[in-house]
Amino acid sequence: MANEERKDGERQPEAQDQPLSGLLNKPVSRRDVLKMAGIGGAGLLLGAAGVGAIFKEGLFAGASSAAKPAAKEAAGDIVEFYGAHQAGIATPSPNFILFAAFDVVGTSLDSVRALFKAWTAAAASMTRGEPVGEESGNDHLPPTDTGESAGLSPSRTTITFGVGPSFFDHRFGLAGKKPAALVDFPAFGGDELRPEWTGGDIGVQVCSDDMQVAFHAIRNLSRIGRGKVVLRWTQEGFQRTGAADPKGATPRNLLGFKDGTANPDTDDDSVMNRVVWAQSADGAGWMAGGTYMAVRRIRMRVEVWDRSTLADQEQTFGRHRASGAPLGGKDEFDEVNLEAKDASGKPLIPMNSHVRLARGDGSAQILRRSYSYSSGMDNKTGQLDAGLLFICFNRDSRKQFIPMQQKLGQSDLLNEYIVHNGSAHFACFPGVRQGGYIGDTLF
Amino acid sequence: MANEERKDGERQPEAQDQPLSGLLNKPVSRRDVLKMAGIGGAGLLLGAAGVGAIFKEGLFAGASSAAKPAAKEAAGDIVEFYGAHQAGIATPSPNFILFAAFDVVGTSLDSVRALFKAWTAAAASMTRGEPVGEESGNDHLPPTDTGESAGLSPSRTTITFGVGPSFFDHRFGLAGKKPAALVDFPAFGGDELRPEWTGGDIGVQVCSDDMQVAFHAIRNLSRIGRGKVVLRWTQEGFQRTGAADPKGATPRNLLGFKDGTANPDTDDDSVMNRVVWAQSADGAGWMAGGTYMAVRRIRMRVEVWDRSTLADQEQTFGRHRASGAPLGGKDEFDEVNLEAKDASGKPLIPMNSHVRLARGDGSAQILRRSYSYSSGMDNKTGQLDAGLLFICFNRDSRKQFIPMQQKLGQSDLLNEYIVHNGSAHFACFPGVRQGGYIGDTLF
Ligand code: HEM
Ligand code: HEM
Repeated sequence: MANEERKDGERQPEAQDQPLSGLLNKPVSRRDVLKMAGIGGAGLLLGAAGVGAIFKEGLFAGASSAAKPAAKEAAGDIVEFYGAHQAGIATPSPNFILFAAFDVVGTSLDSVRALFKAWTAAAASMTRGEPVGEESGNDHLPPTDTGESAGLSPSRTTITFGVGPSFFDHRFGLAGKKPAALVDFPAFGGDELRPEWTGGDIGVQVCSDDMQVAFHAIRNLSRIGRGKVVLRWTQEGFQRTGAADPKGATPRNLLGFKDGTANPDTDDDSVMNRVVWAQSADGAGWMAGGTYMAVRRIRMRVEVWDRSTLADQEQTFGRHRASGAPLGGKDEFDEVNLEAKDASGKPLIPMNSHVRLARGDGSAQILRRSYSYSSGMDNKTGQLDAGLLFICFNRDSRKQFIPMQQKLGQSDLLNEYIVHNGSAHFACFPGVRQGGYIGDTLF
Repeated sequence: MANEERKDGERQPEAQDQPLSGLLNKPVSRRDVLKMAGIGGAGLLLGAAGVGAIFKEGLFAGASSAAKPAAKEAAGDIVEFYGAHQAGIATPSPNFILFAAFDVVGTSLDSVRALFKAWTAAAASMTRGEPVGEESGNDHLPPTDTGESAGLSPSRTTITFGVGPSFFDHRFGLAGKKPAALVDFPAFGGDELRPEWTGGDIGVQVCSDDMQVAFHAIRNLSRIGRGKVVLRWTQEGFQRTGAADPKGATPRNLLGFKDGTANPDTDDDSVMNRVVWAQSADGAGWMAGGTYMAVRRIRMRVEVWDRSTLADQEQTFGRHRASGAPLGGKDEFDEVNLEAKDASGKPLIPMNSHVRLARGDGSAQILRRSYSYSSGMDNKTGQLDAGLLFICFNRDSRKQFIPMQQKLGQSDLLNEYIVHNGSAHFACFPGVRQGGYIGDTLF
C-alpha cells in the first residue's frame, strides 16, 4: 500500500501534446491511448467501450478486431477533469451521485498535501474511465484498482473536491486562510440534523451516469486515503436516467414536481461569475474560480404529501405539477409573476409558497444541482427514507444560501412535508491546471 | 382514498383485441393508446417517450407534433406483466432494483384479496409506463398517481410478488395451503441477521432500468396498501448500466469479479422446469409455475478485501478476476474443471473456494439474479455499507438454496470478506392471466 500511495502521489498528469503519429509508430500502452483520447479521434471510442474494453477486446487487441464503435455515447462521455473550474458544478448533471464526507486523521499538512496529490492523479484517471494505478502483474500484491468498473465507459463521471469549516481549525496551521464565507451554518428553522449526515473536513462529490462507476470512485479514493482520512458520511442519489427520458426534460423530484426550472444559466459567464464563482476581490485569493457548496439531506414525508390534494401541492410550490408552469402561467418556462392575483385579490403564487420565498426579490440566486435519494426505511417511523440530496453552489453562502434557507426554514409551506436531517458546507477549490493538484492554491 | 382503492381493485386488465381502426376513428384516450401499444405499432413510441409524453407532447397532442420516435429503446422497453410466469424471474435483469417487504395489518383475507387485486391493476399499468389510476381532474383530491415518473419510459420495469412463511400463520386461515418448501430458513454459519432487513409477510421485487421508475412503483404500491399493509424493510440495488457497457458483458460485483457466469439457461424450458418453476407434482398445486425466492442482504467488507492480494482473491472465488475464467481456464465460459491440479498435486480450484462449494456435485442449482447495493455507511464500523443484495429463485429451497448456503456458511473462503445481515424467503406466485389477479390461485 505504501508503495502504491507513493506512486500515485508523485504521478504527474499526462501531457497531451504528443503527436498522434509518434504514438502509432511504437507499441501502444494503455497510457498512450489515453493521450490519444485527449487529442480527439480515439475519444469517440472511449465512450462506447471504456479504455479497458478497447484494450482487451478492441482496437489494440492485435488479431482480434471486435471493437464496435458505438459513436452515439461517445463525445459527451468524458468530462475533462482539468480546467479553470472543477467539473461537477457548471457541467450538466449525470444521472447518479455518490457524495462522501471525510475527516482527516492526524495533524500533518504534508500528509494532507500528499493525499490531495494522489487523489488528483486517481481522479484524473477515473474520470477518463482508466483504472487507478498501473497493475504490477504480481498477484501477490493487492490489485491497485478494485476492478468493479473494468470495461465500463467513463460515464461523464466528475469528481469535485471541497473542504469544510473544520478543516481550518488548529490542526494544519491553515486558520489564517479560512475564507470568511466558509462559516458554520446557523441553525435553521425546522432543522433536525443528525450527526451521521452532517459536517466533514473534506467533501467529495462524485457524479456519474453509472452508479457502479460512482461507487468505484469513492471506494478507491477512500482506499488511497487509508490512514490519512476516514469516511464520515456518504449518500447516494439519482435522477431519472437519460434513457428513460431521451428528450431531457427537467427531472422531477420525488414529490412529482419538475425541479431545476429556474436555475441560473451555466453557459452565461457573467451570470456564473456573479452567482457561483468566487472572485479574487472576495478575499481568500486561493478560492478565486472556486465556489461554496451547501449540502442538505432533506427527507420528504412522502406518505403525508401523497394524502394532500393537488391544489395544496401546487400552492405549496407555487407551480403546476403537470407542466411545471408557475401558477397563473401555462408553460414551464413562463415568467414567474409574483404580482398576479386571482379574482378575489389573492396572490396566485401564495406568499409562503416555496418558489416565492426562494426567489425573494430576485437579488440572491444559487445554482441548484440536487439529486433524489431513496435509502431504505427510517426505522423510527416505519416510513420510506427518501427525499432530496439538496446541493447548491454559490459565490458567498452568507449572502445567498444562508438568508434563503433562513426564510424557507421559517415560513415555507413545504416544511409540512420535509425535514432537513443532514447538512454540510464546503469551499470547493478552483479547477486544477494540468500539472497541478487539487487544492494547490491553498497548500 | 377509499374511492381510489375501490376503483383500482375492480378495474379489469385491458382487453387487447380492439382493432386499431376502431381506435383511430374516435377521440383517443390515454387508455386507448395503451391498448394500441399492446397491439404493436404504437409500442415503438412508448419506449422513447413514455405514455405521458406522447399525450402531452407527441402523437396525440393535436397541433403540436414534437414527437421524436427514438425507436432504438423501444421494442424491449416494456416487459409484459401478464403471462404463465411472473416477470422479473427468468426475464433479463434491468439495471436497478427496489425490493420491499411488507407486513399485513389485521386478519382479513378479504382485505388481502382486495389489495392484491388493486396491486394487479396498478402493477400492470406501471410496468407499461402508465400512471396509477385515472386522474379525476378535481384538484381538491389527492392525485391518484404520485407523478414522479410522468414522461418516463416503461424502462423494462417488472414487479414480482411473493408471500413469506409468516403469511401462512393463523391470521388468514391459509395455514393448510402453506407449501412444504416455504420453510423458515435455518440459521446459517456466520449469519448476523438484523431485524431491519429480515422477513416479511409479502415480498415485492421491482426491477427497472430507471431508479426513479422503480421508486415510483414501490411508493404507489405502498400507498395503495395503506391501512392494509405496512412496509417492513426495503433495499435498493444496482448493476452497471447498459449504456456504460453496451456489449452487455457479465456484470461485476463490488468485489470486482464477474457475477452470474455459471447461471442456468433461462431460455431452456427443461432447465427452468427442473431448477426454477414449481411443478404441480411438487404439492401446493397453487404454486405450479411459481418459484421460491431467497433474498439475502450480504454486506461486503470491502476495506478488508481491498487489502488482500490478487492471488487470495482469485483463490477465494476459484476464478480469475480480469477474465472471469475458472482457475486453470482461459475464458469466462470455459468449463469449470474441479479435477485440475497444479504441479504439486494441489487442486487449481481450492477445496473451499466459493465456486467449488456452490457447485458441489452439480446436482443442485439455483437461478441467481442479484444486485449490488451501496447504502451509505455502517455507523458501527465507520465503513461503507455496500455489498450484494443476493436474490435467487429455485423450485424447492429445501433441496437447492438451503443446502448450498449451509455449505457456504460453513466453509466458504469468501466468509472472511462478507457478512449476511438480512434474509427473507418468499413463495412467488405463478404468473397472472389476463383477467386474473396476483395470487388468485391461492385465494
Ligand atoms: C426537499 C426540498 C426541496 C424541494 C422538493 C424543492 C423543490 C423545488 C421546486 C419544485 C421548485 C420549482 C421549480 C424550479 O424552479 O426548480 C423549486 C425552486 C427553487 N428552490 Fe427548491 N426545493 C427544495 C429545497 C430547497 C432549498 C433548501 C433551497 C435553498 C435554500 C431551495 C431553493 C430554490 C430556489 C432558489 C428555487 C427557484 C425559485 C425561483 O427563482 O423561481 N429549494 N424548488
Ligand atoms: C456477497 C456474496 C457473494 C458473492 C460476492 C458471490 C460471487 C460469486 C462469483 C464471483 C461467482 C463466480 C461467477 C459466476 O458463476 O457467477 C459465483 C458463483 C456462484 N455463486 Fe456466488 N456469490 C455470493 C453469494 C452466494 C450465495 C449466498 C450463494 C447461494 C447460497 C451463491 C451461489 C453461487 C453459485 C451456485 C455459483 C455458481 C457456481 C458454479 O456452478 O460454478 N453465491 N458467486
